[in-house]
Amino acid sequence: MENYSFFMPTKVIHGEKALFDKTEEIAALGQRCLIITGRSSARLSGALDDVVKILNAGKITYKHFDGVENNPSLTNVGRGGEMAREFQPDFIIAIGGGSPLDAAKAVAVLATNDIEPKQLYTNKFDHLPLSIIAVPTTAGTGSEVTPYSILTDPKLETKKSFTVPELFPKIAILDWRYTESLPINITRDTAVDALSHLVEGYLSKRATGMSDVFAKSGIELWGACKKALTTGTLTSTERDNLLVSSALGGMTISHTGTTLVHALGYSLTYYHDMPHGRANGVLMAEYLRFTEKDAPGRVKAVLDLLNLPNIDAFQVLMDDLVGKTPHLSQGEVSAYAERAMQTRNVEYSRGDVTKAVLENILKESQG
Amino acid sequence: MENYSFFMPTKVIHGEKALFDKTEEIAALGQRCLIITGRSSARLSGALDDVVKILNAGKITYKHFDGVENNPSLTNVGRGGEMAREFQPDFIIAIGGGSPLDAAKAVAVLATNDIEPKQLYTNKFDHLPLSIIAVPTTAGTGSEVTPYSILTDPKLETKKSFTVPELFPKIAILDWRYTESLPINITRDTAVDALSHLVEGYLSKRATGMSDVFAKSGIELWGACKKALTTGTLTSTERDNLLVSSALGGMTISHTGTTLVHALGYSLTYYHDMPHGRANGVLMAEYLRFTEKDAPGRVKAVLDLLNLPNIDAFQVLMDDLVGKTPHLSQGEVSAYAERAMQTRNVEYSRGDVTKAVLENILKESQG
Repeated sequence: MENYSFFMPTKVIHGEKALFDKTEEIAALGQRCLIITGRSSARLSGALDDVVKILNAGKITYKHFDGVENNPSLTNVGRGGEMAREFQPDFIIAIGGGSPLDAAKAVAVLATNDIEPKQLYTNKFDHLPLSIIAVPTTAGTGSEVTPYSILTDPKLETKKSFTVPELFPKIAILDWRYTESLPINITRDTAVDALSHLVEGYLSKRATGMSDVFAKSGIELWGACKKALTTGTLTSTERDNLLVSSALGGMTISHTGTTLVHALGYSLTYYHDMPHGRANGVLMAEYLRFTEKDAPGRVKAVLDLLNLPNIDAFQVLMDDLVGKTPHLSQGEVSAYAERAMQTRNVEYSRGDVTKAVLENILKESQG
Repeated sequence: MENYSFFMPTKVIHGEKALFDKTEEIAALGQRCLIITGRSSARLSGALDDVVKILNAGKITYKHFDGVENNPSLTNVGRGGEMAREFQPDFIIAIGGGSPLDAAKAVAVLATNDIEPKQLYTNKFDHLPLSIIAVPTTAGTGSEVTPYSILTDPKLETKKSFTVPELFPKIAILDWRYTESLPINITRDTAVDALSHLVEGYLSKRATGMSDVFAKSGIELWGACKKALTTGTLTSTERDNLLVSSALGGMTISHTGTTLVHALGYSLTYYHDMPHGRANGVLMAEYLRFTEKDAPGRVKAVLDLLNLPNIDAFQVLMDDLVGKTPHLSQGEVSAYAERAMQTRNVEYSRGDVTKAVLENILKESQG
């Protein structure tokens, strides 16, 4: 039994119109709020309207930074930081998928620390970040319950995370209604992201008794939605289950981190513009095949919880939901494997992970 | 789907010698520490020695209030409060079963608020309570991860809880070694207390998707230890599992509260001196029989998770571990049922709970 700690101080408010359940707690965070979103999903989902209603009712002054890009770069969050230092908000409300939520964490630090965005990666700041209320509009990122922010560093040509414990959002709002307006491909990509957190966390060397509690429950909930994801028609219950399983995925990786799947997936996103969840999903069946050698019991448990007979069936499901890894040249395969080998995620993966293993996963997963 | 929130900000540090894993975090809480314990278990368990070692190493001045009684009364915690106001600690380390942990929460409030102990029940305080590090020496209470403190009020002739969200301990230390010196009857009584939290939480009307995650995992872990509890010989893994299942029970009831079992059990403790866990355990089989009418699926799930075929087998297990309700006069049965009817716990119980129902549970559970 290895020692571990468990810490997840975010208050999760869950259910339909959850945002309206705790308006006093939101008002207690201060008189000035910076809303952080991408260009469209916050509006389309209805979440932005709800947030503005609450801020107006509480007579809270707000400003809206709606410039978060997909896979936000250091430069992008730097712009948000400038707006924050100028506006001097008391707290932040972040609405959207992983990109706005992760960007908001960076802005929360930059608002109170006059540093260059690249210094975020030092994980040491003189002043506490602003409090964040996270309102996910996708069921995938789990960022609403993690202290991680994943940003793209063009210099490193990849994504890299920074974290301090104070970056756990103060409040996370889980309202399935905000995921209803998502196009089905984004619903699938993000759902597969949630699954990758749960499965990688469960198969991580760092898995603990407590992270297993979250991972197993989350995989089971997710499994109950797999048919709906395939057909593309989701009930409110299924959307709700996916949102909860996504939060459980966040709670899992808060304790375990991710594994080689994420390490390889970042290159598919960076160089091939694959959405983050899809980039993980295309690699996952091969990851299970590799991990099975070291941890057959755990891989079987994943399949059982998903109610799938074997890895081939898992492969078919992923093919249906997110397709295949694009064709890669030998040079690309080698470069991505090399880059992944330098990450911590690989250390956390079970089995004897070598560059050749990673190359094989990239090759075998191609369409 | 009903809306709910999830909040559990305690950092749980788990494993052998867990106390020594985060000494900097402990030192960061301040320079003066009040240790709160009962008379013996903190010493016998070795936990007090470990705590003193860490405080000495960190050059933290401490004082020791070792006067917590079983089922601490308002007067008892008032004495701790006096010592705290005099000593002016920065934080509290509580070591023991539910009694010292709950007493410490009261002292944490009384240390910073000059109020009468009975005013604790107002749940409103001008000043924040002191931070608490909770070191359980029993696997039962779950108090190390709840914001509840349950005190005996001689005027009300029963136990009653008070709570504010700031009473979640800052840190909980789960080290199975500290439960090793417990006599087997206390191991059983407290284990049954943990089970009652898990089962009552799972069968509560207030159960949520998230509380179910904790409850189901906890019941399953507990079930794996039932034979060891019966035989009286526990391995370190079983002790560890019980300690985790006890914490999962605490996380469950933080969201659901308890039910009629606790409401009735308080009278068995107050008037018949039955240990708290035992007082719940003797009632639990009859509680399952009653609840089965309203929620057969949930009761079956409890039995399945425990790997028991039916309620009769559950009854046999409880009889083995904690025995029977003592013989009660009709007057006692009526009075205890009447008192329980006035509690919230009864509202949270499934099914149509009337005074007659409670009387029947008390009668049928007698030996």
